[in-house]
Amino acid sequence: MVTLVELLKSRRSIRDFQDKAVPLKIVEEVLQECTLAPSASDGQPCMFSIINCKNTMRALSDESKANLLDDFAKNKTTLNPAYAEVLKDKNFNVFYNAPCLIYIIGSKNVGSLDWDCALAACYIMLSAIERGLGTCWVHLGSYIRNPQTKALLGIPDGCRIVAPIIIGYPKEIPAASERHAPKILKVIS
Amino acid sequence: MVTLVELLKSRRSIRDFQDKAVPLKIVEEVLQECTLAPSASDGQPCMFSIINCKNTMRALSDESKANLLDDFAKNKTTLNPAYAEVLKDKNFNVFYNAPCLIYIIGSKNVGSLDWDCALAACYIMLSAIERGLGTCWVHLGSYIRNPQTKALLGIPDGCRIVAPIIIGYPKEIPAASERHAPKILKVIS
Repeated sequence: MVTLVELLKSRRSIRDFQDKAVPLKIVEEVLQECTLAPSASDGQPCMFSIINCKNTMRALSDESKANLLDDFAKNKTTLNPAYAEVLKDKNFNVFYNAPCLIYIIGSKNVGSLDWDCALAACYIMLSAIERGLGTCWVHLGSYIRNPQTKALLGIPDGCRIVAPIIIGYPKEIPAASERHAPKILKVIS
Repeated sequence: MVTLVELLKSRRSIRDFQDKAVPLKIVEEVLQECTLAPSASDGQPCMFSIINCKNTMRALSDESKANLLDDFAKNKTTLNPAYAEVLKDKNFNVFYNAPCLIYIIGSKNVGSLDWDCALAACYIMLSAIERGLGTCWVHLGSYIRNPQTKALLGIPDGCRIVAPIIIGYPKEIPAASERHAPKILKVIS
């Protein structure tokens, strides 16, 4: 019997995938399960775009890198200098070699959007394990703002990408990163 | 054998609890497990305060309600008018009758803090189930800003509360709210 803790422990961020497509039906099942995640006032604000095409993912990676580097050059964002160098490498694909990408999207008017989408992302990352899939939340892939690209992805006006989640069959399961003990600031009892 | 999906399905937001304390050791186990949650660049920025005392929780509820109503009166925040009326009720405890509260806290300098804390919250909510516990993320309890209270909770300068999670033994498990099908905006394959 697999316990919940074993499942939580078995989740890894996966950045190296088998050359094997993820059937759309499986992605849809994962998204169906992530609707079980809680959301503020049960608002269920998350929307999704599924990109099951490596060429499109490559173009999205290029656009996201270019926009982020542009923000960085204009001091609109901070960026670890090591990351900036990596992003300038034309061969670097922020989505690695993943076969599939899910964008979690929502309305800018929803105050709890970041939390709601992160909870849905958590459910996606756990549901994927059950199906032998691996995932990684790739924030670097969220800098999409060209109107044509947003239209291609079906992103409605007034909405934004919160979480880009890559998904695929892992080549191998890496060791877990070391976790420090929980930082408990105070216990009041 | 309990599958992950069954576990995800069994999670509910719990707002009515047995009059039974949660042993601190159990809370610490849950927090230990939530360190397994992913975080941006493996930054592991979450910190925790545990309030295992109903009187202190009552005082925190009163302060949070007062601050939120003050923000609302000064047009610093929007609030569902129905909520505003409920908050004005002196008998209303935003933490319901829960015996225990975990504040998830982090530095304002961490750009990914809301996502990181929401992922930790998700792990807490799932780990709790394994131990027969129920939880609810109570955003209304996060409006703590009096310096004395922040000191009492051990909140360091430059840090903020992201997620107040109540935790306890459920009186009953309510039915799940109805979920709509995942809103899939586009499939590109």
